[in-house]
Amino acid sequence: MVVWDPPIRDYQFLYHELLPAIETVQRLGYTDFDADFLDSLIEGWATHCEEVWLPINQLGDSEGLKFEDGKITMPQEFKDAYHQGIDEGWLSTTCDPEHGGMGVPLFFQAVTWAEFGTSACMALSVLPALSIGVYEVLVKHGRQDLIDHFATNMASGIWSGTMCLTEPHSGTDLGIIETKAIPQEDGSYRISGSKCFITYGEHDMAENIVHLVLAKAPGGGEGTRGISLFLVPKFLPDDWKSGGLDGISHSLSSEHNGVICSGTEEKMGLHASPTCVMSFEQSTGWLVGPLHGGMPLMFEMMNRERLATGLMGVGLAHAAYVNSLAWARERRQGRSLRGIQEPHEAADNILVHPDVRRMLLEAKVNNEGCRALAAWIGLLLDQMHSDDPEEAEMATALVALFTPIAKAHFTDLGCETCSTAMQVMGGAGYISEYGVEQFYRDVRISKIWEGTNGIQALDLAGRKITQDFGKNLRYLMWPLTEFIEENRDTPGMAEFNKPLHQGVRGLQQLTLLMIAEGMANPNFLAAGATDYCRYMSNILLGYMWAKMAKLSLEKKGDPFYDAKLASARFFFKRIFPETVGLAAKIQSGPKSLMDYPAEMF
Amino acid sequence: MVVWDPPIRDYQFLYHELLPAIETVQRLGYTDFDADFLDSLIEGWATHCEEVWLPINQLGDSEGLKFEDGKITMPQEFKDAYHQGIDEGWLSTTCDPEHGGMGVPLFFQAVTWAEFGTSACMALSVLPALSIGVYEVLVKHGRQDLIDHFATNMASGIWSGTMCLTEPHSGTDLGIIETKAIPQEDGSYRISGSKCFITYGEHDMAENIVHLVLAKAPGGGEGTRGISLFLVPKFLPDDWKSGGLDGISHSLSSEHNGVICSGTEEKMGLHASPTCVMSFEQSTGWLVGPLHGGMPLMFEMMNRERLATGLMGVGLAHAAYVNSLAWARERRQGRSLRGIQEPHEAADNILVHPDVRRMLLEAKVNNEGCRALAAWIGLLLDQMHSDDPEEAEMATALVALFTPIAKAHFTDLGCETCSTAMQVMGGAGYISEYGVEQFYRDVRISKIWEGTNGIQALDLAGRKITQDFGKNLRYLMWPLTEFIEENRDTPGMAEFNKPLHQGVRGLQQLTLLMIAEGMANPNFLAAGATDYCRYMSNILLGYMWAKMAKLSLEKKGDPFYDAKLASARFFFKRIFPETVGLAAKIQSGPKSLMDYPAEMF
Repeated sequence: MVVWDPPIRDYQFLYHELLPAIETVQRLGYTDFDADFLDSLIEGWATHCEEVWLPINQLGDSEGLKFEDGKITMPQEFKDAYHQGIDEGWLSTTCDPEHGGMGVPLFFQAVTWAEFGTSACMALSVLPALSIGVYEVLVKHGRQDLIDHFATNMASGIWSGTMCLTEPHSGTDLGIIETKAIPQEDGSYRISGSKCFITYGEHDMAENIVHLVLAKAPGGGEGTRGISLFLVPKFLPDDWKSGGLDGISHSLSSEHNGVICSGTEEKMGLHASPTCVMSFEQSTGWLVGPLHGGMPLMFEMMNRERLATGLMGVGLAHAAYVNSLAWARERRQGRSLRGIQEPHEAADNILVHPDVRRMLLEAKVNNEGCRALAAWIGLLLDQMHSDDPEEAEMATALVALFTPIAKAHFTDLGCETCSTAMQVMGGAGYISEYGVEQFYRDVRISKIWEGTNGIQALDLAGRKITQDFGKNLRYLMWPLTEFIEENRDTPGMAEFNKPLHQGVRGLQQLTLLMIAEGMANPNFLAAGATDYCRYMSNILLGYMWAKMAKLSLEKKGDPFYDAKLASARFFFKRIFPETVGLAAKIQSGPKSLMDYPAEMF
Repeated sequence: MVVWDPPIRDYQFLYHELLPAIETVQRLGYTDFDADFLDSLIEGWATHCEEVWLPINQLGDSEGLKFEDGKITMPQEFKDAYHQGIDEGWLSTTCDPEHGGMGVPLFFQAVTWAEFGTSACMALSVLPALSIGVYEVLVKHGRQDLIDHFATNMASGIWSGTMCLTEPHSGTDLGIIETKAIPQEDGSYRISGSKCFITYGEHDMAENIVHLVLAKAPGGGEGTRGISLFLVPKFLPDDWKSGGLDGISHSLSSEHNGVICSGTEEKMGLHASPTCVMSFEQSTGWLVGPLHGGMPLMFEMMNRERLATGLMGVGLAHAAYVNSLAWARERRQGRSLRGIQEPHEAADNILVHPDVRRMLLEAKVNNEGCRALAAWIGLLLDQMHSDDPEEAEMATALVALFTPIAKAHFTDLGCETCSTAMQVMGGAGYISEYGVEQFYRDVRISKIWEGTNGIQALDLAGRKITQDFGKNLRYLMWPLTEFIEENRDTPGMAEFNKPLHQGVRGLQQLTLLMIAEGMANPNFLAAGATDYCRYMSNILLGYMWAKMAKLSLEKKGDPFYDAKLASARFFFKRIFPETVGLAAKIQSGPKSLMDYPAEMF
C-alpha cells in the first residue's frame, strides 16, 4: 500500500539552479561529471530504490531478523535486494575507482543517495551507509596493507562495516569505555571488551564484517585521550598467521576472530536492522591512525553518519508526506467553509480545509527546506577537499557548523513531520496497513543515535560557535548578511528578506549573550543549547527559502516556481515565527533548570 | 522493568488545597463524601492499578489479542485483571448505587481513575471508560425498560459498551453515514450497516457487548440531522421475542444478534485493545433519546470520552516521565560544567546536565499543569449538575470551553512528553526492555480518536468561543482577570502574574481578531484554530501554575511547595514563551495556506 514519489525534480532544481553543483565539482577535479550524468544517477538510484528496496520495507518491519546461536539471519528478500545493489554498483558510488567504486562526488551519496535509500527502506540503507563511513576512515587513515586488503570489498559492499563505540555504561561519555587493546609482538592488537547498540554488528548479508572499535591501549591518558581506533574483522584471512596483511588473500578463515554477537535488542522500529550486543574476546585487530589518537578519526566518521542521520529524517518525512498526501487526495469529509466545492459528491475533498493544508504544508515545506540545506552541505563536503586553501577552510568551517544542525534539526523535524502526516490520515495513519506508522516508529531512532540531539546542540553552542574565535559562524555570516544587503530593495523580496534580517540580528544578539554569559557560567550555554540550535536551524532554513524565493520570483508563472514561492511564504508566515519564543527561552538562562531541587524531580 | 509512581500527593494537593473539592461536592449532595474517603479511593485505586493492571501492560503489548472466526480472544491475564476490577467494584465508582455503583462524584472517575488506569494499562482501561460512557447516556436518555435491563450489568462491567460512529468513508463527517435503522412494529429497530475503528467492538471479557450505534432512520433530514442513536446488544435476552424489555431476564440467547466482527486492525500501539470492523446485519436495537436527535446524545458521551482521552495523554506522559527519571537517577555520563560533582565515580549523575533537566522538567511541569487543569474540569463536571442554575450554567460553559483543550492539548503534550522521556534515556528509550517505547506508541492514538486534535481546535475556535455570544469565554475571563487583578501587588507573584496578564491580553486580542476576520472569511478562523487552541491552553495552564504558585508561596520551606514554585517558574520561563510565536502564526491568516495551488502539494 505504501507509495513513494522521489523528489527528482527538486534535486534537479537544487543542484542545477540553486547551487552551482556541476561547476563546483568540475573545478574540484571531477571533470567528467556533468549535468546529464548527475541526472542519470539521481534517476537511476530512484528507480533502483523504487523497484528493489521499497517492496521489502514493510516485510522487513513485520518479519524482522532471526537471532539464534550468535548468528543473525536476515530475510531472504533483504539479501537479494542488498546483492542486487552490489551487482549494480549502487553501494559504492563515491568510492575510489581504484577500489571499484564509481568515484562520483561526495554530495550525491551524502544527500540524494541517503534520502532515497531511507525513504525506500531505512533498515537496509543504514548498512551501506555505515560501510562507506568505515571505508572512508580506512582509506584516509589506514596502513597501506589494511587498505589493500579491505578497501575493495568494503567499497562494493561484499564486506560491511560497523562503528563500535557504545558500552553499556558509556554512551555519550566515551571517556569511560573499558574495552582494552593489548599490543602484540607482530604489530597487531588483541581487543577485549563489550559493546552495545552496534548496528549490523552481525548479519548474513556480507561475507565479512569489519568493525571499527574504540578501545584503550596501554600508555594512553585518562578519558578520551587514551582511546585508539582498531580495525577488527569478524573473520581473519585464512592464510594469515601474524604480522601485516601484505599479500594475504581474501579467502576467510572459517573460525571467528573472537567477535561474538551475544544478543540483539528488540526495539520500536527498524526491525530489520540488527542492533547487536558484541563481545570481543581476544580478537585480533589493527590500529587505524595514531595510537591514543582514535577520537578525532571516530568523529570524522561520526560526522558523516550525523549528516546521513539528518537525511534519514528527511527521507522518512518525505515518505510519510507522500503517503499522507495520496490519502488526502482521495479523502472526502465535510464541506469547505467558503461553500460547497464539489456538489456532486457527498463531501468535499479534505484539501479544502485550512487545517489539513496547514499540516501538509508544514510537512512539505520542512522537507524541501531541509533538502535544500542538505544539498548545500553535500557540496561543501566536496569543497572541503579543494586544493584552494581558502575554499577548503570555508567549507570545513561550514560543515563543522552545519553538521549538528543537520543531525538535530532534520531529525527533530523528521519526527514531527511523520507525526503530522499520520495526523492528516487520522485512524488510517495509526494502523499498519498504510505504512505511515512504520515511518513514525523508524524515524524516532534518528534523534537518538550518532549522538542525541541534545549532544548535537551542545556541540553547536559549546564548541562549533566558539571554535577558532568564532570562525565557523563568520563563514556563515558573510554570505548571509551579503544576501540580505543585496536584496534590501529587490522587488518582491521584502516579505522574505525582512524577517530573515530580523532573525539574523536576533541570532547575533543571542550568540553574544550565550558567549558572554557562558564565560561566567557554562550552564547558561548548556541550558540554552537546544533552543539555540533550533533558532539557528530556522535561520539557515530561512536563508535557503529566501534564496529559493529569489530564484523563483524570476520564473513566475511556471507552477514549479510558483509553488516554491508559496512554500517560502508559508515558511516565513507559519514556521519561522517560532524563533521569537525560542529567543525568550534562551534568554531566561539556566536558573529555572539548575535551581530545581534534584530530589524533587 | 516498568516502574510507576502514582501522583497521590499531587492529587491530594489539587483536591484538598487548590480546589475546594470536598466542600463543593458535599454542597452538591454527596454529604458522606469526605476527605478521608477521597484519599482512600485515590490510594485504593492506585494500589489496584499497581498490583493488578501494571503487571499485564507489557504482556498485552507483546501478546496482543487473537482474532479467529469473528471472535476475539483476549490474553487470560487481561480477563483475570478485568474481573478482579469488577469484583472489587473499581469499574463502577461513579455509577448510581441503585445500579450497584459506588456513587462517588464524577470527578474521581473522570480524572484520577482515568489517569491511573491509563498509566497502569491503557489497553485495558479504555474498556471500562467506554462502558461508563454508554452507561451514562443510557441512564440519562434511555427508556426505563432499557435502563432496568442494561444499567446494572453495564455499571459493574459484566457487560461492556461501545460507541459505533465511524464508517469507512465517514470519520470526521458523520453526516454521510450509511447505516440504516428500520422501525419494526414492536417498537424496536432493525439496524444494518458497517462500522469501523470500533474499540472493544468484540472481545471475550464481558458476557455481552452493548453497542450505541449511530444510524439513519426513515424520515430524518439530510446530514447529521437525520441521525438517531440505537442501543444494539451483541446478544439479545434469551426470553425476548418482541416489544420492550420489561420483566425480561438477563439470561442471554446463544445466537448473536446479527452483530458481527469481521476484522480487527493491526496498529502501532494498544495491541491489547481490539479495534474492530463491525457489521450490523438486521440487528435488533432500540432507540435511545429522540428519533433523529441522536447527535447531541452522542456528543454528550463523546465529550466525556474526550476528557478521558485527554487524561490518557497525562497518564502515559506521567508513566513515561517516571521511567525516564528512574533511569536518569542511575545514569552517570560526563561531568558537570561547573566542576566534578562526584569525584569517586567515573562520571557524574546526568541530572547535573542542564539539557537533561530541561527535558525532565518539560515532562514534569507539563504533566502537573495538565493534571491541575483536569482536576478543575473534573469538579466542573459535578457542578454541571448543581441545583443552583448559576453554578450549573457556569460549569456547563467552562466544560464546553475546556473539553477541546483537554482533549487536544493534553494529548499533544502527552505525545511530546513520551518522546522527551524517550530522549532522556537515549537508546534505552528506543528498545522494548524499558517500556517507554510502548508508551510512545500507545499514546499516539490519543491525538486521533474521539475527534482529531484539529477537529478539537475547530470546535474551540469555531464553536465554543462564539457560542451564546461568547458566554463560555466570559465565564473564564471573570475569574482569570479577577485573579490577575488581585495579585497585582502580592509579594512574590509578579514573575507569574505579569506574563499571565500579558498572555491574557494577547488572548483577548487574538480572539477579537479571529471573530472579526472570521465573519468575512471563516477560513481565517480555521487557519488559526490549532495555534489558537494551543495559545489558549498555555493561558489556562499558566492560570493553574500562577494559582499553584500563590498557594506555594505561603508554604515556602516545605520541599513539596518549593518544588511547585520552581515548577511554576520553569513553566513561565521555558514553556509559556511559545505563545509569542503562536500569536504571530494566527495573525498571519489563511492566505499562505489557501493560496497554495492544490495540484502543487
